[in-house]
Amino acid sequence: MGQSVAMKAAILLLCIALARAQAPVPSIAGFRPESAKQQLDLESRFDKALNRQNLQQWVKHMSAKPHHVGSPASKATAEFIAKQFESWGYETKIETFYPLFPTPKTRLLEMVAPTRFTARIEESAVEGDETSGIKDGNLPVYHAYSTGGDVTGELVYVNYGLPEDYRKLREMGIDVRGKIVLARYGASWRGIKPKVAAENGAIGCLIYSDPRDDGYFQGDVYPKGAYRPPQGAQRGSVMDMPVYPGDPLTPFKAATDPKRTPDPKQAPTVTKIPVMPISYGDAEPMLRALTGPVAPTDWRGALPLTYHVGPGPAKVHLKLEFDWRLAPAYNVVARMTGAVKPDQWVLRGNHHDGWNFGAADPLSGMVALMEEARGIAELAKSGWRPARTLVFLAWDGEEPALLGSTEWAEHHAAELQRHAVAYINSDGTGRGFLRVDGSSSLELLSTQAGRDLTDPQTRVPVLERLMASRKVAGRGGDFHIAPLGSGSDYTVFQHHLGIPSLNIGFSGEGGGGSYHSNYDSYDHFVRFIDPDFQYVMATTQLGGRLTLRLANAEWLPFQTASTARSIRAWTNEVIKLADDMRTETARRNELIRGGAFKLAADPRKTFVVPQAEAEVPFLNFAPLQNAVGKLERATAEVAKTDPATLPVEKRNAWEEALRVAEQKFLRGEGLPRRPWFRHVLHAPGFYTGYGVKTLPGIREAIEQRLWPEAEMQIASTAEAITTYAEWLERAKP
Amino acid sequence: MGQSVAMKAAILLLCIALARAQAPVPSIAGFRPESAKQQLDLESRFDKALNRQNLQQWVKHMSAKPHHVGSPASKATAEFIAKQFESWGYETKIETFYPLFPTPKTRLLEMVAPTRFTARIEESAVEGDETSGIKDGNLPVYHAYSTGGDVTGELVYVNYGLPEDYRKLREMGIDVRGKIVLARYGASWRGIKPKVAAENGAIGCLIYSDPRDDGYFQGDVYPKGAYRPPQGAQRGSVMDMPVYPGDPLTPFKAATDPKRTPDPKQAPTVTKIPVMPISYGDAEPMLRALTGPVAPTDWRGALPLTYHVGPGPAKVHLKLEFDWRLAPAYNVVARMTGAVKPDQWVLRGNHHDGWNFGAADPLSGMVALMEEARGIAELAKSGWRPARTLVFLAWDGEEPALLGSTEWAEHHAAELQRHAVAYINSDGTGRGFLRVDGSSSLELLSTQAGRDLTDPQTRVPVLERLMASRKVAGRGGDFHIAPLGSGSDYTVFQHHLGIPSLNIGFSGEGGGGSYHSNYDSYDHFVRFIDPDFQYVMATTQLGGRLTLRLANAEWLPFQTASTARSIRAWTNEVIKLADDMRTETARRNELIRGGAFKLAADPRKTFVVPQAEAEVPFLNFAPLQNAVGKLERATAEVAKTDPATLPVEKRNAWEEALRVAEQKFLRGEGLPRRPWFRHVLHAPGFYTGYGVKTLPGIREAIEQRLWPEAEMQIASTAEAITTYAEWLERAKP
Repeated sequence: MGQSVAMKAAILLLCIALARAQAPVPSIAGFRPESAKQQLDLESRFDKALNRQNLQQWVKHMSAKPHHVGSPASKATAEFIAKQFESWGYETKIETFYPLFPTPKTRLLEMVAPTRFTARIEESAVEGDETSGIKDGNLPVYHAYSTGGDVTGELVYVNYGLPEDYRKLREMGIDVRGKIVLARYGASWRGIKPKVAAENGAIGCLIYSDPRDDGYFQGDVYPKGAYRPPQGAQRGSVMDMPVYPGDPLTPFKAATDPKRTPDPKQAPTVTKIPVMPISYGDAEPMLRALTGPVAPTDWRGALPLTYHVGPGPAKVHLKLEFDWRLAPAYNVVARMTGAVKPDQWVLRGNHHDGWNFGAADPLSGMVALMEEARGIAELAKSGWRPARTLVFLAWDGEEPALLGSTEWAEHHAAELQRHAVAYINSDGTGRGFLRVDGSSSLELLSTQAGRDLTDPQTRVPVLERLMASRKVAGRGGDFHIAPLGSGSDYTVFQHHLGIPSLNIGFSGEGGGGSYHSNYDSYDHFVRFIDPDFQYVMATTQLGGRLTLRLANAEWLPFQTASTARSIRAWTNEVIKLADDMRTETARRNELIRGGAFKLAADPRKTFVVPQAEAEVPFLNFAPLQNAVGKLERATAEVAKTDPATLPVEKRNAWEEALRVAEQKFLRGEGLPRRPWFRHVLHAPGFYTGYGVKTLPGIREAIEQRLWPEAEMQIASTAEAITTYAEWLERAKP
Repeated sequence: MGQSVAMKAAILLLCIALARAQAPVPSIAGFRPESAKQQLDLESRFDKALNRQNLQQWVKHMSAKPHHVGSPASKATAEFIAKQFESWGYETKIETFYPLFPTPKTRLLEMVAPTRFTARIEESAVEGDETSGIKDGNLPVYHAYSTGGDVTGELVYVNYGLPEDYRKLREMGIDVRGKIVLARYGASWRGIKPKVAAENGAIGCLIYSDPRDDGYFQGDVYPKGAYRPPQGAQRGSVMDMPVYPGDPLTPFKAATDPKRTPDPKQAPTVTKIPVMPISYGDAEPMLRALTGPVAPTDWRGALPLTYHVGPGPAKVHLKLEFDWRLAPAYNVVARMTGAVKPDQWVLRGNHHDGWNFGAADPLSGMVALMEEARGIAELAKSGWRPARTLVFLAWDGEEPALLGSTEWAEHHAAELQRHAVAYINSDGTGRGFLRVDGSSSLELLSTQAGRDLTDPQTRVPVLERLMASRKVAGRGGDFHIAPLGSGSDYTVFQHHLGIPSLNIGFSGEGGGGSYHSNYDSYDHFVRFIDPDFQYVMATTQLGGRLTLRLANAEWLPFQTASTARSIRAWTNEVIKLADDMRTETARRNELIRGGAFKLAADPRKTFVVPQAEAEVPFLNFAPLQNAVGKLERATAEVAKTDPATLPVEKRNAWEEALRVAEQKFLRGEGLPRRPWFRHVLHAPGFYTGYGVKTLPGIREAIEQRLWPEAEMQIASTAEAITTYAEWLERAKP
């Protein structure tokens, strides 16, 4: 190296060093620049305290036995977790509730015509999966909260079993009344399938995993690959949770009494007809035995046969009996009291119960939460304390019906609404891309956390990687947080109590078909999901950032402008929905009345021309539009306020006003036909189950063509939005 | 019935009768109202002369033996058809040509690793299909004009084998050089697959029918249902027909010399690598033996396995040897000389050769043409004669490469361009919806024929039924005729000689998987395709209307405005194509250069970031737009001329000018790299095979990113359009 070259290099290095030194601290919502720097230092110490081995060892330990709610291992798991929290210095307790939880006594499924075949309904042990042979305490393949029954009937294949699938069947001249339907998993949450089947008059329901959606079509099957093998079946809840989750006998209240004698007949959320999950191995002979019309193209799966819809000649006999008992649900509650604002609680939860071994679901998320809590406890050892109180929650009984979280939150409803700042949920997590969904007011918090966390595979911020994948998929623009439907323990917080919530994790790579099966095991997880626990660790770090920022923020980082933006977008959507339905209804009615449907149909196939539907009226959206206008003006004013400049008392009062504001979206009467869901901005869909509906009162009234109800929901949704806006206007410092 | 009620009823009936009596004769292009009425009477007498039994008996008779070109049964079929025509009073002859036609001597396909498996490559007899067991004269499963070869290599699954499939493989890090590719039928014409495989360096190619596209996924398989059974395979030509069809050794000229010694090495349209069709029964073990990356979702078929792309460990050995001989192709030519304008010829053709039994393809169309000719001959018995000369043509050797029609039309090119008014083609036909594609100038003729023909199933006009089905599919608006690509005998007339052409038939209901297999039999046809020959009869009637109207029209019904309308639409398309490619290229380049592709990819899978492509320049479309403007003005002027008002000599001169005008779209130099295709408005796609490309010189230059060529093609296409427009301006009376 010549001298001048060396000099140039030295200058270059100096420049880089200076540039680094001067790199501005990224802003963090809720923090002044100087405290943001301290916060980043804290997070960096937090990261250093973390240990990946814990993640691996805890998953291995807790997934060794079936640990569903009510099992001995569930109690042991709760106690194990509680012991850890205690050892790290948290005030820890186990809060137990006693919801109804049925387990199967009889499960019989046989085809009785045209040939006989008895379904195995069993997931055999596979080589290389250590736990797959464990029978002791194993919950067999079944659907929780199916009603019992003994039914025999002709079989009809109903695709995904959605309302539109039955409309299609009617066009094919097929009536499912008195029949047993065979639906495939997918496109809706499973509990919707027996509900819609019963609405259409079916007497029984089977749900199978088609290899198209969940099996060899997707990839090599377990144990060769990650995907669902022919004998694999998906357990799960079929409770009508879009009406309300939790103990079916105690909506709105906690199931605190262990001595009740439960009567499942008093439970409106138990299914109306018996329903059972089966494997594609068990489904294949039945599908093969169906005749009748060939199923529409997009109904056909990947089994090597021609999909016919029936009815019959396949005839099946389904007999189900359950043991309807109360099960103890052990929630672990661990608290670290805040040093500055102890009455503001940051809630962070994950469930600990699995269908059986539950390595991915829920333990990958559970251990992330535990390591997060341990990391924070390490920080506390050096004297640091969070400004706000942290509450870590390990739920029991999530799988059957969000039992633990729902009963706990119903029990503590009043104090939660008084103290809770936010609820951050995780559940099973995997390799891939940042996943953070939830309340619009937490959008900036989430974006900044994603910006400040490095992806373990690519070493860029996890948000940058997510945005790259969206760009590649043709979805550019900014990141906007998606609202939550249901499917995990945030449900009661978000939709019932109006507490801003997030659901976090990683997903999109790896994948597989162990979901809710015996093969959701340690061995499966480390081979196919997150072999070195990199993304479980990333979940720990992500949860840590969110929790610590919420805990330490000088003022709560809620962004009302994001809420307004979302509401504007949803408003435009529901208006467009009505317009599109109007156009489409007119188009279809013209095809019906003008005879085009009839002319276009193949006369050699049955085709029942659908009835013309009432035209879609123009709805008065003005109240909603006016409310959104008011909201936008109010939040524009709010944006002008810089909390940093306020005296502390004013700032604290404003912060409390913002916290409370989130609950202004709740309505006492709740949604039509499901009063437990009280939030006007979002709810799980009545006919999607997990999938969210935004402005649900309005949107579902339109979808279900309930025009007077739609007008009323517009008015009352507008009222809630106006109340929120006016509250902001009044409270603004 | 009371008296006044009876009176009212009588009045009503009277009104109806009067309304009917006064119903205006629908206008028919080329006819004055009074002659239109006569024409409709003639068509009604034509209909009455038709006999469905003939259709059934002729199909049965001619499908009794394998009758491919060069077979004894092909000669017998030609002679049988000729005898019929003769007996009906046509001047009939058989014109024979001697093109190259290879038949297989050796067909060996075996998997040699990781396990051994020898493909059966044979379609066994099935119950209930009388001819399926005939071995005598049967052409086995093979691809005509595959080169011979003896190759062994690792197998790679390449989806449909399109250029974009190889791009996708490159992204997966997979190179097919030195490999044997396994492609599935579909998405392009089969001959494209070995061509693109060879361009990518593969040494052999197998093409199988995946049950997703053509097998049990679509419906029950033969003989239970209509669809392709596991042992069924699709024969077919793989000649590079987008370069030129017909005898590969005599492009532009007729193959008249039976004594040549053919050298297949001199044939540029023979494939570069050996290729063979196989059944899904034969493909399954090979697909099952592949490892490597899992195929992209839309590459996966309906076999019960996980589709991997390889390469290997499956290794296959393919050995093919052919007998390269000249085969006599017997074209039947039957003429009825016109009474008024004998020098104007209306051509009507269908091929008579089948791959083997060919009941649907081609005989269902062949017998429709024969019965049409017989019906017209019946009219002639009462002294009637067509104004123009009718020429019925029964082609041989269509299946291997449009041999009969191409050689005949090349032989008679000069007189055809002097005399031909139009060529109307049919081929296999089935139950369902009107299908009429072709030259825009014949759009009105076609529409009116569809309006005046009753659908046998629904009793409404076949056009009305077609439009109903389009409406139901969400495609409203008027009927516009679609341009022709290739795939049947119109090719030489339409694209090489500039003779306005139509291809007609019915399709869309029934369906099945007998195409180019031994199961294209009488038994299959009457069970699944058109059981009572209703639609074969409708094809007879449709052909009859078109032929008789063209034959008798007082002036040719060509509509230049329709041509202009089409050219305007295609012009907009190619401009949009360039714009869309520009946007998409910029978007992809940004993803490549910005690193998004890399970030979004799963690091555990191979992903080779594609190279950025040169940005798409702005092209000078002005010459084309100016030409189209000129054309629109010219055709608007033409539309003001009512031929009915012209003195007969002027009318005839104008008619001749219109006839000749169609050939103004031909360019002597033809399309780049394929001079035989001379039409600037349409050609079969270089990489689609059958699928049409409109304004092909421009469109394909853009698609292939040949920018200077695109500019040149814009100029020369514009020149042809201008020449046409100026010709109309000059000739207009």
